[in-house]
Amino acid sequence: MDPITLIPNNTLVTATPEEGRQLAVHISRLIVKATQPDAQRREQLRDVYANDAAMLLAVTQTVALEFATIAAANNYWK
Amino acid sequence: MDPITLIPNNTLVTATPEEGRQLAVHISRLIVKATQPDAQRREQLRDVYANDAAMLLAVTQTVALEFATIAAANNYWK
Amino acid sequence: MDPITLIPNNTLVTATPEEGRQLAVHISRLIVKATQPDAQRREQLRDVYANDAAMLLAVTQTVALEFATIAAANNYWK
Amino acid sequence: MDPITLIPNNTLVTATPEEGRQLAVHISRLIVKATQPDAQRREQLRDVYANDAAMLLAVTQTVALEFATIAAANNYWK
Amino acid sequence: MDPITLIPNNTLVTATPEEGRQLAVHISRLIVKATQPDAQRREQLRDVYANDAAMLLAVTQTVALEFATIAAANNYWK
Amino acid sequence: MDPITLIPNNTLVTATPEEGRQLAVHISRLIVKATQPDAQRREQLRDVYANDAAMLLAVTQTVALEFATIAAANNYWK
Repeated sequence: MDPITLIPNNTLVTATPEEGRQLAVHISRLIVKATQPDAQRREQLRDVYANDAAMLLAVTQTVALEFATIAAANNYWK
Repeated sequence: MDPITLIPNNTLVTATPEEGRQLAVHISRLIVKATQPDAQRREQLRDVYANDAAMLLAVTQTVALEFATIAAANNYWK
Repeated sequence: MDPITLIPNNTLVTATPEEGRQLAVHISRLIVKATQPDAQRREQLRDVYANDAAMLLAVTQTVALEFATIAAANNYWK
Repeated sequence: MDPITLIPNNTLVTATPEEGRQLAVHISRLIVKATQPDAQRREQLRDVYANDAAMLLAVTQTVALEFATIAAANNYWK
Repeated sequence: MDPITLIPNNTLVTATPEEGRQLAVHISRLIVKATQPDAQRREQLRDVYANDAAMLLAVTQTVALEFATIAAANNYWK
Repeated sequence: MDPITLIPNNTLVTATPEEGRQLAVHISRLIVKATQPDAQRREQLRDVYANDAAMLLAVTQTVALEFATIAAANNYWK
């Protein structure tokens, strides 16, 4: 399917919640990359959503969803 | 119902997180295919959402939701 | 409440992931049917969302949510 | 808070998946009722969303979310 | 952070599903209050979403999400 | 990736539900900060969503999603 890597290091396990949160941000951006492979176009679209309140909120929802999975995968780092 | 295959290989089990992520992308696209069977029309719509920041964010939300299920099905590849 | 059947065969158990996915699509459509009982009107609305990129993405989100429940009900067919 | 009943019979337990699905639809409508107590106004708004493809899809997402909880509460009727 | 109380009584445990549902509505409204502290402005915005079909549906989605957590916290009142 | 801290104190564990709720609000705002690093621009966008009913509802959905994870991480403070 997509030739780009979608899950860095091919694992959901991270050492800390902070790294898990970074991974959540990262893997959601990789889906954007897989869907829109043109880097210049992505940069333009990034300007759009970083300056639009509704889209910033949509970003937070995506990250929350990804983080839920990663947190569960790490047994909430307990 | 839909004559097309909705779950490739009829399983949610994958060898790795990377393959699980690819599956998440794949099965969400198959729902688009089942809903809009016209390949040419789908290609046009794909151009729309790949160039629209809000829709790209919606794609990330869908993939996050599908991946949550696939990750759980694979016990998070632990 | 709604006189139409909302869960075919009154079970979430399916033999395979493929059938579970079909069920996810099916039960979400039955909610549309219960909310808009006029078949001709539904057909018109279906044309709308099958040709609108944003709405197709919304369909994928609904199916992902329903499938999560059905997959859990089937212990992920493991 | 709201004087209307939000959970009929004050339980999430139902005899069957079909009844669980009806409950999902019901409790989401009761939230609409609690938020917009004017019955005539609700009827007008219902006409709006029953004839709008995007809103019908939003209805399916709400029901999917409520049903997930009810299904878990009933151990998926297994 | 926010000086207002976000979780009344500082617990997710409720005696009944009905009270759990009321809590779901309540805590989501407290997030609105924390985000928009001006009571008069909130009242105006409340008029907006109580008379808009799409926003009423968004309310139902929020409540469904909060209720899922509260129901799990109470082991579904079983 | 982002140089700012995404999870304060690098833990999802909190003493109380109230603190867990505050954390849910906090970590979602940090995602906004990571996506839009310009503080002045963020302040402008905050004015936008604090005065828009639909966006306030989107905020409640994000917080509900984050709180679900935090609540699970704390075993619902039981």
